[in-house]
Amino acid sequence: MVSIPAELPAYLDQNADRFLSELKDLLRIPSVSTLPAHRPDMERAHAFLAEQMRAMGMENIQRLLPKERPQGEPLLYADWLHAPGAPTLLFYGHYDVQPPDPLSEWLTPPFEPTVRDGNLYARGASDDKGQVFAQVKAVQAWMQTSGRLPVNVKFLLEGEEEVGGEGVELYVRQHHDALACDCAVVSDTAFFAPGLPSLDVGLRGMVYAEIEVQGPSRDLHSGMYGGVAPNPFEALARIIVGLKSVEGKILIPGFYDHVQPPNAAELEAWKRLPFDENAYREQELGSAALTGEQQYSVLERTWARPTLEVHGMPGGFTGPGSKTVIPAHASAKISMRLVPDQRP
Amino acid sequence: MVSIPAELPAYLDQNADRFLSELKDLLRIPSVSTLPAHRPDMERAHAFLAEQMRAMGMENIQRLLPKERPQGEPLLYADWLHAPGAPTLLFYGHYDVQPPDPLSEWLTPPFEPTVRDGNLYARGASDDKGQVFAQVKAVQAWMQTSGRLPVNVKFLLEGEEEVGGEGVELYVRQHHDALACDCAVVSDTAFFAPGLPSLDVGLRGMVYAEIEVQGPSRDLHSGMYGGVAPNPFEALARIIVGLKSVEGKILIPGFYDHVQPPNAAELEAWKRLPFDENAYREQELGSAALTGEQQYSVLERTWARPTLEVHGMPGGFTGPGSKTVIPAHASAKISMRLVPDQRP
Repeated sequence: MVSIPAELPAYLDQNADRFLSELKDLLRIPSVSTLPAHRPDMERAHAFLAEQMRAMGMENIQRLLPKERPQGEPLLYADWLHAPGAPTLLFYGHYDVQPPDPLSEWLTPPFEPTVRDGNLYARGASDDKGQVFAQVKAVQAWMQTSGRLPVNVKFLLEGEEEVGGEGVELYVRQHHDALACDCAVVSDTAFFAPGLPSLDVGLRGMVYAEIEVQGPSRDLHSGMYGGVAPNPFEALARIIVGLKSVEGKILIPGFYDHVQPPNAAELEAWKRLPFDENAYREQELGSAALTGEQQYSVLERTWARPTLEVHGMPGGFTGPGSKTVIPAHASAKISMRLVPDQRP
Repeated sequence: MVSIPAELPAYLDQNADRFLSELKDLLRIPSVSTLPAHRPDMERAHAFLAEQMRAMGMENIQRLLPKERPQGEPLLYADWLHAPGAPTLLFYGHYDVQPPDPLSEWLTPPFEPTVRDGNLYARGASDDKGQVFAQVKAVQAWMQTSGRLPVNVKFLLEGEEEVGGEGVELYVRQHHDALACDCAVVSDTAFFAPGLPSLDVGLRGMVYAEIEVQGPSRDLHSGMYGGVAPNPFEALARIIVGLKSVEGKILIPGFYDHVQPPNAAELEAWKRLPFDENAYREQELGSAALTGEQQYSVLERTWARPTLEVHGMPGGFTGPGSKTVIPAHASAKISMRLVPDQRP
């Protein structure tokens, strides 16, 4: 049993303003991983966090780039491993952010952190710099007030979470020994409800696919060839309708073969959560109706059931106005969220 | 009965090189109506043709812009109406062209007319400057060799055919008296087969629509909301499949109510055309199969049957790579080709 150091609460209170000020400094760095113009900002955010690690006494601080992706954004690794026999915690987080567009939707500038109604607004404040910083400062405060940590700690922070995370995937695959831990703490998630801290114990996995359909060998004029030329969008529509019933059942043979229901404890815990289906539908989704497998609850459908969604259908003419081409090809971007034991 | 002026064939022979040279001058003008940078070229092409009209003795030459579209491309009108009692022919054509992209596909520059294997290659050579110029020179040669024309002639040339033709539609609606004629000659079509001059006696009409589907009120993360949020692409797929059977029958109630079959003379004429279904499928469409209503011939399907096609499905994520949004809305661009007596 680990006790919280006696001085820790006071230390956190006394340093809250400084912590907030430092977090704002991090949030001011526009580390947008998808935009090449922000590469220097990516390095600044990396360096900022590396300096935090150094100052708090973490060791073995490394700027890592898998050699297969020299053009990628660097990982930041650091550890403190002086609690023999105690468990090892791996903190994962990311220092990159999504592009802030459309700028006109922001009430205050995305990279000028602003407090409104007790909340801190900035791009990355909740995804994921805020969470990363809370972990960093929690470890730092414990270290500062007790001189050591009660567990072994490893940090692995990445800069490509918003652009696919290929670097971290490669690195984990190649260096799983160095990253060995008893528990990985991932705080790139959300509270279930305001004021209700949440423990996410699992996330659905994913398969992403693009279904490409070839129609004629070149784009054709629908006035001249309409009626005989195969239309790839029509084929895609039939494929999509064939993948999922109107009741939300995925029709791929064998898709549900290994899907496990949540256990009784999970179902029981979910029932205790504050959840109003109508409020969720209206405020979270802004939708006239909920879709999907009605025989499962909304939480079960979004947490424990596999799904299939269409995200976009590139091809043909998508600009404003009209163009009457029968496109040579079109495709559908489709993903499936997977649950344990599914074998895609 | 009108006889061809005795000097006409020799005149055409003697002037063929000059005609070709002048046509090349017209083809060198990059009158791309959709690109604002080419507005001066649009005016040059208009002025070039107006000068042709003037030089050949046409009258009442006008540069017309419907007042509702002052930003549009000008129409060119000209007439010669000194054959009382004789019919009036209205020649329609357009002097604007499509953008030449992709440039890498051109064997010779699009605006440097080049003769290869007896054909003239340039953007607009067959759509529609070549046809317009043949008409202009036919009238000019007749006028030159006989001093007058055997019929009344009106020219109406537009510069917005490739961008919707709104100006000409407005003008025709407002000035149908001035455009009254016994026969409108439209040569913005194609030969049925090489060396087989063709008379197109009708074109299918069109209704263009965009079906917009609203799902959630904002884009949602499919990992968090997949399984309950309505997906607009899924709805569109069901709508598209509901619009047309896999056999190519359009399922909109009443769609075929007033569709007339071609008459016996038309069917008979079409049977005499050189048409090889396999060659058409392979060379024209480059497709593994022909689709549509099998109980009708390919020519009937493309010339006399109404059709419905999907041209593009804007919405969601269409860039390279993956993004897992359930989009707030998506739409399908759909057109229907219509035949006489259909009431959309």
